[in-house]
Formats: sequence, C-alpha cells, structure tokens
Amino acid sequence: MTESKLKRVEGGVTYPLGFKASGIHCGLRKNKSKKDLALIVADKDCSAAAIYTTNKVYGAPIKVTRAHLADGKARAVICNSGNANTCNPDGVDKANAMCSALAKQLGINENDIVVASTGVIGEPLPIEPILSGIPTLCAELDSTPEAGYCAAAAIMTTDTRLKQIAVEFTLDGKKAKLGGMAKGSGMISPNMATMLSFITTDAEISSDILQKTLREVADKTFNMISVDGDTSTNDTLCVMASGMCGNKCIDKAEGEDYETFVMALEYVCRYLARKLAADGEGASKLLECRVRGCDDYAKARVLAKSVINSPLVKTAMFGADANWGRILCALGYAGMDFDPERVEVNFISSAGEINVCKNGGSVGFDEDKAKEILLVDSIIIDIDMHEGIETATSYGCDLSYEYVRINGDYRS
Amino acid sequence: MTESKLKRVEGGVTYPLGFKASGIHCGLRKNKSKKDLALIVADKDCSAAAIYTTNKVYGAPIKVTRAHLADGKARAVICNSGNANTCNPDGVDKANAMCSALAKQLGINENDIVVASTGVIGEPLPIEPILSGIPTLCAELDSTPEAGYCAAAAIMTTDTRLKQIAVEFTLDGKKAKLGGMAKGSGMISPNMATMLSFITTDAEISSDILQKTLREVADKTFNMISVDGDTSTNDTLCVMASGMCGNKCIDKAEGEDYETFVMALEYVCRYLARKLAADGEGASKLLECRVRGCDDYAKARVLAKSVINSPLVKTAMFGADANWGRILCALGYAGMDFDPERVEVNFISSAGEINVCKNGGSVGFDEDKAKEILLVDSIIIDIDMHEGIETATSYGCDLSYEYVRINGDYRS
Repeated sequence: MTESKLKRVEGGVTYPLGFKASGIHCGLRKNKSKKDLALIVADKDCSAAAIYTTNKVYGAPIKVTRAHLADGKARAVICNSGNANTCNPDGVDKANAMCSALAKQLGINENDIVVASTGVIGEPLPIEPILSGIPTLCAELDSTPEAGYCAAAAIMTTDTRLKQIAVEFTLDGKKAKLGGMAKGSGMISPNMATMLSFITTDAEISSDILQKTLREVADKTFNMISVDGDTSTNDTLCVMASGMCGNKCIDKAEGEDYETFVMALEYVCRYLARKLAADGEGASKLLECRVRGCDDYAKARVLAKSVINSPLVKTAMFGADANWGRILCALGYAGMDFDPERVEVNFISSAGEINVCKNGGSVGFDEDKAKEILLVDSIIIDIDMHEGIETATSYGCDLSYEYVRINGDYRS
Repeated sequence: MTESKLKRVEGGVTYPLGFKASGIHCGLRKNKSKKDLALIVADKDCSAAAIYTTNKVYGAPIKVTRAHLADGKARAVICNSGNANTCNPDGVDKANAMCSALAKQLGINENDIVVASTGVIGEPLPIEPILSGIPTLCAELDSTPEAGYCAAAAIMTTDTRLKQIAVEFTLDGKKAKLGGMAKGSGMISPNMATMLSFITTDAEISSDILQKTLREVADKTFNMISVDGDTSTNDTLCVMASGMCGNKCIDKAEGEDYETFVMALEYVCRYLARKLAADGEGASKLLECRVRGCDDYAKARVLAKSVINSPLVKTAMFGADANWGRILCALGYAGMDFDPERVEVNFISSAGEINVCKNGGSVGFDEDKAKEILLVDSIIIDIDMHEGIETATSYGCDLSYEYVRINGDYRS
C-alpha cells in the first residue's frame, strides 16, 4: 500500500470501532477549566503493546502498566495530568488504587488497565480527586469525536495545542481505522512533563506482532523527536487493537495486510511526533533534520539526532541565522565516522531552498535569501553525506527565550 | 605535596621563567579596541604536550599543530580570534603561512610553532591582517605581567572576563612556576567559539610524561565542563615547559616531584575550567555537580556530566527553582546502572545547605530556604549515590535568556 490509500479523517481515539473515551477536571489541577483525567475504554479485550521511557528513574504508573500488559491484553487506559506519581514511596500503591477503582466502576479486570500520569515529579499524588472523579469519568464515556477530544485535552500539560489524528484504510477488504492522541510538549521530556501517546485501532492483530511493529515504528517517529535531549521518567506509547473491523488477524510480520497496517501506524505516529516537536516548549518553529546519502541507517539516525539536539543549531534557527558551521560541528561530535569534506547542507522551507555548504566548506550563498527561508515556521535542515543511500529524519524545534521562561519557574 | 604548598600569585603565562608574550589588534575584529592576535614565545625549545577537540570536524590549525608537536617540542604559540579558520579549503595553507611568517620574524623553526584560531567557522580567514601584524606582535614581546595580560585578552571571543592564573611551588628544592590563560566562553564550544587554553611552566619534564599528565588532568578539569554539550571544532589545550627552574627532569610518572607537578597543573587547570564554566554564554551562575558515593569513577563522571548538561536542570537553576526531580531524571537517562531509591540530593551555596531528596524521594524541604540558597551565583548540586566511595565533579552554568540572545544571532 502507498500512503495515498490512507485517508485522513476528523477525530481521534474514538474513531476506530469499539472505543469510547472521556476527559474531565477532577481537581488535580488548580485551574478548573483544565481537564486533568482521561479515560479510553474498549468494548472488548484488545491486543495491546506499549513502549516506555528508557530512563533508569521511571514512574510508578510504568511499573504497574508493564505488569498489566505482560499478557498482551488491555481493556482501558486511565491517565491523569498535573502530577507524575514518580519518586514517591507510595507511587505504586496509588497507581494500583487508580486501576482498582476504575475496574470496579466498569466491571472489568484491573490487570487489563493501562495507567499513566504526567506532571511534576517528587510530589505525592493526591489520590482523592481521582477516586472521586472516576464515577463521572465513566458516566461520560462516549464514542463521539467530542469524547475523544475531551480525553486528548485531559492529558495536556504545557502543550499549547491539542494533538490527535484519525485515519482509515483498507485491510483484507475491510475498512480499518486508527486513531491517536498525544501530549508533549514537544520534547521527549519537557519538565518531567512526559511524552504520552495512546493509539486505538479496530484492526485485528496479535499482540506479539503489534509490539514488534510498534517498536519499529516508534524508532522512526517518536524516538526521533528531541526538544532538549532530556528523557522523561514517564514516557509511554501504547496501542490497543479491538479487532472489530473484521480483518483476518495479522499474526505474521509479512504480507500485504501487515505492510498496510505498518504504513498506517507509521503515518499516525509520524503525524503525532511532528506535532509534538512543533509544539516543543517555547518553540517558534518546527525543525526537521534529514540526513541522507549515508552509508548506514543507524549512523544516519545518530547524526540527525545530534544536529536536532544541538542548542547552538537550535538557537541559530530561532534567530533565522544560516550558521551552517554549527551543523557541521554537531555532526562532528556525534561520535560517528564520516568524511567531513563530502558533507553538503541545504536549508529548505516553504520560502525556498538554499545550498549553504558543499564539500564541507562554504559556498558563498545569498544571506538575504537564507534569512527569508529560515524565517518560516517549519524548516528542513537537509544534509547529504555523499557516501551511501540511507536516510533518517529527526524532529525538533528551536530554542527560544520562551523555553527558558517556561522552565526557569516550572513548579510555581 | 598538598595544595597548601602551592602559592597563588598575580600573573599569567609570562610568570614562569623563559616566556614572553604579547597581544595586539591586527584587524581581524572590526572593533579596534579588541585585540585579536596573541603570541607566547619561549627563550629556548620546550617540552610540549597538547590535547585537541574530539570533534570529527576539526580546524585546520589543529591539523598543523598536531604535526608540529609530533616531536614533543615547541617554541611558540600564535593564536588569533575572530575567525576559526575551519571548513575552508585553504585553511591548512593559511595556518602554515601564519607559522612560516612568525618563524621568519623570530628566527625559529616553523615546525616548533603551535597555531590556533577561534571565531566563526566556514568563512575564509583574512590572512593579510595577521601577516602584517606579526612584526608588531613580535616587537611587543615581553615577560612582564602586562604582556601576558595582553595575550590573554587577544584570544577572548564572547568571554566577558579575562581568564589567567599563575602559581609557584617547590620542585626538587627549586622554586617552580606555572602560568595559564584560557578563553571559553564557558562551554566546550560556544558558537564555534572554542575552548582554548595555553599553559607555561619552567619545570623540566619530558614531553612523554607531560602528555600523559595533561591527559589525566584534563579529564578531571577541562573535560568536566559543559555549557551546552556542544563540542567545538577548534578546542586546544597546550602546555610548554621551559625547564629553566633547574629541577632534575621529571621523566617518570612517579615520585614526589611528579606528584607535585601533577598537583600544580591540576590546580591551574581546575581554576581555569571553573572560570570557563562561570563565564558560560549568558551564564548568571556557576553550577558544580558533585556525584559522590559512587561505586565507579567513570560512572560518577558520566552521571555528573549528564546533570550539568540537562537544559531542564540548567533552566531550573537559572530560576532558582529547587526542582530536584529533574536531577533524578538526568541521572536516570545517563545510561548508567544504579539504584534510584538510594539517591540523595542536596543544594549547597554560600547561603547554606539543604537536603531536597533522600532515598530517591521527596523530603518535604523548606522551599523558602531552598530559594535563598539557589539565588546565590555559585551553586553545588551535591548528589550521594550511597553505593561506594568514588566522586566526580562537573562544571557548568545555568541556561538563561541571554544564552538564547547571544546564540540566536551570532554572526551579525
């Protein structure tokens, strides 16, 4: 399948068959107009897969979720914002309490619940607002687009924009759907604010294949985002598959149906990953660094991430300054072997395209034109290593005064 | 020897016997009051050692210097600011031209000259101002403190403060001296602005032992600085030893004289490294992260650098916000194995000391007191891993609005 067979539609996690959602303000956030508790529930048990932060210090909800997903099955996701429930001695107890209260309310097994939290770490999670909010949260469950929107709103922290997507595609002759929501904001770990993404689908797929696919897709999408190089304690990416579209179960990592599903999942993850990067804390523009012509894919990834992580590149892009030397520098300290004298650098945006470095050296470009290109709010840093055919793209944002303001006084 | 036997004195690179220096404005910088060409010359051939950037993309001057120092001997250092002479096809030719003009003027061998450049990369180095400046530069050579000061001023770029130091100590019954100068500003590679440091001594030491010692000392000092994690293309740290103090040559890495010399060199390097960190671009405060109680020294280094590199920790320190969760988070993503539930975190400054995290969790500290401690412009982030006896300290600075301003528009 090509991406052209994929249809983008309005909606989010409630778009696929078999899912309801809700989002309410339960009282964890002081601002009453800010929702802080989200729920996604499937009509039946789903195949499920998840990927978590690689941080050695990780949240209590991850400990609980990992155990619950050991059997590859899930029925619901509950997620609060406002507190990460991390680095507290009673964290696991409280994450369990969230699951057991929800299980009781819905009449489902608490071992089938995915639990996540995002917000400040090291402060005890107030469990009362959550427990007393669960009845309302469940009462409001619905499969409407509005219900999905409320859930997506309830997981936001410093995000300035709500992030969700829905697509449909054909699988085994049936109409299949994928929906997803995510929060950043913009880096892997803003303020301990955490990257969270929950994806639903009505495709039928075994949990083993779903886990393998999710890992591969995440490595090309979510794992290529960087806002500041910090990796949160609570990052979680989870997919639930209800199987209600009626396709023949995908239980092998091959064949047309498998390829189609991977393509659709990658589309959804890439969309959400780019939205996270563009909404990075204080971001004024989305940066995409494409490293191509590389002799090795893993190397291309490392190089692309090194450039997107460089504070000097990020501040230069904030200032619309075509300081390409910083890009060469960031390639150079990535710890990879390459010939600097082959490197080519171009800047591309909707205002045009300009070559600023060839054979590792200056080309005497038009500074005014470069400025015009870099003033656009979405920029591709295009790097050709001229040594092979592999390409990797990383996603990030510029480094602005606003980032410093947000993070200099986060807890107040 | 203990550090108490070391005496700090006024002066810089001209303090040790056998060294003259000078610094002039030759015309590379537009601002005529800013010196841009520095020279250090020894009265006789010196043992010499150097360490360079690990960046795969490195400056032409490093290529030339590395060849000149292959025999462990040097006679002079010439260094310009305003242009890094990097990523230009004619870079090596111009670095060679600098050396040969200087050699001719001084009647020394051009292969004994260390050459360095700092400033913007990818713009051709204007060689004329340098060549026509060399006669004046040589005419002004002197062994006075003022001459050393002029040389230190001429290598500065975005540094806000001149950095030099001189010490004396006893070696083999003789009075020995060390002097040093450095420029940052503040990180390993601000704006491609480069970390440069030149150190002189009148101790007699073989170049092999000098190289080994310099490597070890640099790993504890200069290599523990981070302003933004970017590593420049032109970093150079070089030591010249004239041997004129008259001690028995140190030609083994053992014995009292060797230990004394290492101690003195480490003192000088640590002093300059702390000054570089404190003068990081846009820095409002010096941060030192001491990781102690670790079961492995290499691990302690990695953990200390991960914390000092974290933009989230740096912005929190800028905002005087005791957000210790970010410190645990930065330890967690360093890729090292440890037990998060043993970690203790304290903040220490001249305003006091406060414990904010014990056993990996919150301790309910006094926020007002923490704020008072963190408002001071020099802060120690003290981390006890409670698993062993190794300690490593990293040096850095906070991340401020000013960093973004400086780097958003560097080339203008």
